[in-house]
Amino acid sequence: MKKMENLQKLRGFREFYPEEMVPRVKIFNKMREISRSFNFKEIETPSVEPLEIFKIKSGEEIVRQTFSFIDKGGREITLVPEITPSVSRMVAQRKNFVKPIKWFSIPKLWRYEEPQSGRLREFYQYNADIFGSSNIAADAEVISLAMAILDSLGLKGKYVMRISDRILMENILVKIGVNNVESILRIIDRMGKVDEKTFYHDLVSLTDDEKAKEILEIIGVKGNFNDIEKRVSSIIVSDPRIEILAHLQDFLRAYDYGEFIFDFSIVRGLAYYTGIVFEAHDKKGEFRAILGGGRYDNVVELFGGEKIPAVGFGMGDAVLELLLKREGLWPKYVESVDYFIAIQGENREYALKVLTELRKMGYTADIDLTGKGLSSQLRYADKIGAKYILIIGDEEIKTGTLKLKNMQTGEQKIITMDYFDNKQSKY
Amino acid sequence: MKKMENLQKLRGFREFYPEEMVPRVKIFNKMREISRSFNFKEIETPSVEPLEIFKIKSGEEIVRQTFSFIDKGGREITLVPEITPSVSRMVAQRKNFVKPIKWFSIPKLWRYEEPQSGRLREFYQYNADIFGSSNIAADAEVISLAMAILDSLGLKGKYVMRISDRILMENILVKIGVNNVESILRIIDRMGKVDEKTFYHDLVSLTDDEKAKEILEIIGVKGNFNDIEKRVSSIIVSDPRIEILAHLQDFLRAYDYGEFIFDFSIVRGLAYYTGIVFEAHDKKGEFRAILGGGRYDNVVELFGGEKIPAVGFGMGDAVLELLLKREGLWPKYVESVDYFIAIQGENREYALKVLTELRKMGYTADIDLTGKGLSSQLRYADKIGAKYILIIGDEEIKTGTLKLKNMQTGEQKIITMDYFDNKQSKY
Repeated sequence: MKKMENLQKLRGFREFYPEEMVPRVKIFNKMREISRSFNFKEIETPSVEPLEIFKIKSGEEIVRQTFSFIDKGGREITLVPEITPSVSRMVAQRKNFVKPIKWFSIPKLWRYEEPQSGRLREFYQYNADIFGSSNIAADAEVISLAMAILDSLGLKGKYVMRISDRILMENILVKIGVNNVESILRIIDRMGKVDEKTFYHDLVSLTDDEKAKEILEIIGVKGNFNDIEKRVSSIIVSDPRIEILAHLQDFLRAYDYGEFIFDFSIVRGLAYYTGIVFEAHDKKGEFRAILGGGRYDNVVELFGGEKIPAVGFGMGDAVLELLLKREGLWPKYVESVDYFIAIQGENREYALKVLTELRKMGYTADIDLTGKGLSSQLRYADKIGAKYILIIGDEEIKTGTLKLKNMQTGEQKIITMDYFDNKQSKY
Repeated sequence: MKKMENLQKLRGFREFYPEEMVPRVKIFNKMREISRSFNFKEIETPSVEPLEIFKIKSGEEIVRQTFSFIDKGGREITLVPEITPSVSRMVAQRKNFVKPIKWFSIPKLWRYEEPQSGRLREFYQYNADIFGSSNIAADAEVISLAMAILDSLGLKGKYVMRISDRILMENILVKIGVNNVESILRIIDRMGKVDEKTFYHDLVSLTDDEKAKEILEIIGVKGNFNDIEKRVSSIIVSDPRIEILAHLQDFLRAYDYGEFIFDFSIVRGLAYYTGIVFEAHDKKGEFRAILGGGRYDNVVELFGGEKIPAVGFGMGDAVLELLLKREGLWPKYVESVDYFIAIQGENREYALKVLTELRKMGYTADIDLTGKGLSSQLRYADKIGAKYILIIGDEEIKTGTLKLKNMQTGEQKIITMDYFDNKQSKY
């Protein structure tokens, strides 16, 4: 006899029983509905890819965090940890798209990380991207889609979208006199993940005390456009990015979804971002980022395409679920059946005909599948949440009738199939 | 510069552009709709599992056909090639279910096989199972669900459900005098996949010429209950399974979905089936089986549960897609947008407000994201299938109006937002 522990699911992976799965499907369908209203089209990428395509974009370090292995043909392959490389390839390999292209998807992704609250080894991630526009209008559209989805799930007022600009930030750092901008951004990206002393020490080690203080001041700037413009213009007198941020604020206010602020501490670790970056955070600050994204104008050409500007974001299901559950916004799961057919006696065929009729009309209908007695059937019907029971015995078969019992009121009456024909046949 | 071929997707894997994905989602949603009308609840299992759980059910041979590997913790894990072990474990580990349990799921699965028509390395598979009833009524319900799904996709008349019974078949083989029943079943399962001569030779090699002929005759029996009953009763005078098949026919006729026949050549390779087995086939015989399933009463207890009878089936998306496409039943994909907003001039905010209003009303609405001129915007709107265009310029902003153009008739008129308020706000 095998030991049970060998058979259990792997750590960081999830099984969804109906009470977990049915609400999840509802949330995914809400995401689909909002995406479609924004005219984003659904796509899908493979779940296994050559490891190579992730190295191209994110370097060798990604390998440590993937479920990657050598396949039977001797090739390095991996469960996909993100879909940007695959989607970029899809864009690159077709030349005849009408641009801009607006795509979304809800893939499963895998990361070999230590499982913890809001971080799993297998998770879903909603993704949306616009390819083919470098205009800030596209950034605003993507950020608004993210906010529209959060709002539609009831989260308006519970989150804040934090926005920064990598170009402006780099210009500021250069202006301050920093010469290893990339390294500084990596340190800023770790803020909040390491303690303040370590953080400051890391900054100083790459610059000097004075510059570190200036950097600290800059990344402490948060607020609306006027707030940040005041601070930025004391360092940089004129920068075209400042005007772009003003437009972004105007556009996002016109879209009129949830709250957003500019926040220069937002970096989004991955080096491939080339402009606006953003993250949505739980207002109570309890969880890691709900979603994150930004502009990445140089990725598609890595996959053999022409240079096609792109902006997008990804939102995992783990933090979103924690947040929705904390706020009481996770959809309720209630077992419910419109009609349960109980059989009194031996004849099953008449009951099955009624069953099929009801199902074709679009009702959820169920029937005894065990051959047990009537009282056992009625108990089962009650447990699975039947709203009505149809009892069919010899008398009903003989007269072509049905005994209908309303489970809420207890009321019983004799009906015929005509009773139902207010609903249309579905197939 | 990296070579492009290293970046391409793996063989046997698929990318779905919108024209392939949107119809697929429609088909999956149809499957969900039918499943729900049968009161099956959706679940989901992990995509990666300990390899062990597949060895338990299907033996060491399964390893050759999986994407399995040693993880960084030194453990043998695999991309799941089927979900029966995972689902059985989910049933086994909860003791308080109201039975029967009716579950479905639409996982991605992976098999390391040579890709060919209708067989891929990564595919979707619809699964449905009933746990907790050994009554033939449950087999009939599951087979009917399979047929209801095919019918709902427009396939009624295009397929036939072929049904056999492993117990009756084994009893017949024993009665004939065969003593290595399992091996004979494995050979029968290969019929049609090897040439007739090889097939007959294999049979004789395990029995003798006379028995091989009898076996050939038995597996050639196809038809309704009367057809098979005649033949079977000449070998076995009385067998309780015969009566069960009579019930099954009566029940399936009462359910009244597509065509079915009894066909003793259906074995369903996997050794764990313990009763009724079935496969649906394209009537024109062009493809491999559309779906297959049967009863497996001994699997749940392997996962530490009590003995819980089970019956279910799986249907991959690859053959189904080939068949639907051949029959012209694959859903059409048409790019379509309810409203496209074209901006004349510099002011974008008013247009964005209108855009958000329309989207909140549930319309698919899109807007220029490039900052290009009006004629370029109108061409784009036409290409993405806009039904109406709303043109917004300085005049409209000043007067709080919109210029509405019907793209089918070319008709233009000036409207206000009141025009739309026949639809309800969605969020």
